[in-house]
Amino acid sequence: MARRTLEPSALFAAACAGDRAALARALSLLERGDQAAREMGRLAYTRGGTGYTVGITGAPGAGKSTLTSAVIRHVRTAGTEVAVLAIDPSSPFTGGAILGDRVRMQDHATDPGVFIRSMATRGHLGGLSLATPEAIRMLDAVGRGWIVVETVGVGQVEVEIAGKADTTVVVLNPGWGDSVQANKAGLMEIADIFVINKADRKGVEETRRDIEQMLELSDLAHDAWRPPILATVGSTGEGVPALWDAVTGHRAFIGGSGELTRRREHRLREELREIVARRLEHRAREVCTGERWESLQADVLERRIDPWSAADEMLKGVGA
Amino acid sequence: MARRTLEPSALFAAACAGDRAALARALSLLERGDQAAREMGRLAYTRGGTGYTVGITGAPGAGKSTLTSAVIRHVRTAGTEVAVLAIDPSSPFTGGAILGDRVRMQDHATDPGVFIRSMATRGHLGGLSLATPEAIRMLDAVGRGWIVVETVGVGQVEVEIAGKADTTVVVLNPGWGDSVQANKAGLMEIADIFVINKADRKGVEETRRDIEQMLELSDLAHDAWRPPILATVGSTGEGVPALWDAVTGHRAFIGGSGELTRRREHRLREELREIVARRLEHRAREVCTGERWESLQADVLERRIDPWSAADEMLKGVGA
Repeated sequence: MARRTLEPSALFAAACAGDRAALARALSLLERGDQAAREMGRLAYTRGGTGYTVGITGAPGAGKSTLTSAVIRHVRTAGTEVAVLAIDPSSPFTGGAILGDRVRMQDHATDPGVFIRSMATRGHLGGLSLATPEAIRMLDAVGRGWIVVETVGVGQVEVEIAGKADTTVVVLNPGWGDSVQANKAGLMEIADIFVINKADRKGVEETRRDIEQMLELSDLAHDAWRPPILATVGSTGEGVPALWDAVTGHRAFIGGSGELTRRREHRLREELREIVARRLEHRAREVCTGERWESLQADVLERRIDPWSAADEMLKGVGA
Repeated sequence: MARRTLEPSALFAAACAGDRAALARALSLLERGDQAAREMGRLAYTRGGTGYTVGITGAPGAGKSTLTSAVIRHVRTAGTEVAVLAIDPSSPFTGGAILGDRVRMQDHATDPGVFIRSMATRGHLGGLSLATPEAIRMLDAVGRGWIVVETVGVGQVEVEIAGKADTTVVVLNPGWGDSVQANKAGLMEIADIFVINKADRKGVEETRRDIEQMLELSDLAHDAWRPPILATVGSTGEGVPALWDAVTGHRAFIGGSGELTRRREHRLREELREIVARRLEHRAREVCTGERWESLQADVLERRIDPWSAADEMLKGVGA
């Protein structure tokens, strides 16, 4: 039935009833960002609230996908259902990786308890930062208890998305300079848990010391939750049970302290602000047409006025 | 003198007279995005227009920095002055790379004909996509003829910035799948020149065929300028003179065909639109306060209304 209709409520009902194809189509519909997408978003928003998001992020090549796969495998031994949102151009989930990784991922492809979705980096009008929370809410609404969001920890938008999970895991590798780069990319600020992955290589202790040192210099070390630093080998699964214990431990901690509620409220407020801004941006596109716009553009092109002053001029007309 | 005053016009005059410290401070001032920054931007905008930007982009680890360094060395043998803007968290220019690269970069640190600047990924209100063209205009205004912009080809914002150069060089490496990833990241669309760097490794011909194939499938192959595919070894400088010839060749081509003017006008129009959007975003922050905002937020938090509908409600009040 869901195959034939694009009607949001029927599609949503089918997805809630466990129809994976309907869920996939509901997510595609959401990504379009049109009227039907808005309706789908409204439907999803009325349900849910029980799902929990875990962000896994780090530099390209840190082994996030392999680690994510190992985490899924571990979680599935307990029968827990899990969804994965992959926002990472180098992820095997999104199809851009070496053959070995792809094959490894296909273990989960036949497991009905695992739902994997990659997010296109283009498409949604509000960009990834607005498309991601909507996709998460949909997965939450249809009853996925754990939602893992894998993002590459490079790029302004991607690091921000990574930091919007309930629990954020930052993946580093043994080796000099890795933690310095994580710091520069803003990853240190968003970490609830550090993982030194590929820990079968040399330099684990040095990296651990580097992270400890950065923690000492930051505010994080003095918060009630001090991010633990764990070691894993994604390819063998070593250290993954301890990582998952840390995730559930962090969940219990922020659940108990009220921090989870604060985080979620903060995220929703930020999202709301961003939606308002996108709406205004849309309005700006409408404003930026017509004779006055053309003449101001000509002034800018001929260097009679700089772009910022021209923008001020233009906005005088819309009261913004 | 420039050391003591922060007055934009004096600082700008000193930078134009060749004072490197003043130029560095002028760029820092621009990044602040405040009133003084706006004045600095206006000053810079009245001059310049002779500089030419070359974007060098690719995945992390593709050897962009080493290649950029080799390009600088080649350009300097002809005495040409060059500026480098590095927007890449993994770049040695921004301080996050291995020791060998840093040492290599320091060759240029003592060369007055080379000015290197790294852009912070945070700070500027409008984000990197608005901070970058302003920095470029400043470098142009003080007379730097060639401006190389190095960006990591991962992430929505960064790929967009890479595509805003006059000539864009996309750096790949030999090996299966690399060009597939470049395609996914949107790099294929913005390439004027392809470089297979680290060409002393196996797989150069396969990669070349992959790129050729993708070109055939895209519109690029049928444009008047078909992106050439070159091979380089950044660490030895092999192939770099040919790369530079391709850059100057592309410059001559788009200069002659009128495409350069079209590109620059298109970029300026896009920038203007984005500034208008940022201004409106600022307005949104102002709008999103007060009693009505608080009560709408409460409705969202308690799932009585979804975020998009709430945003629409809020904006009814501002006529947007």
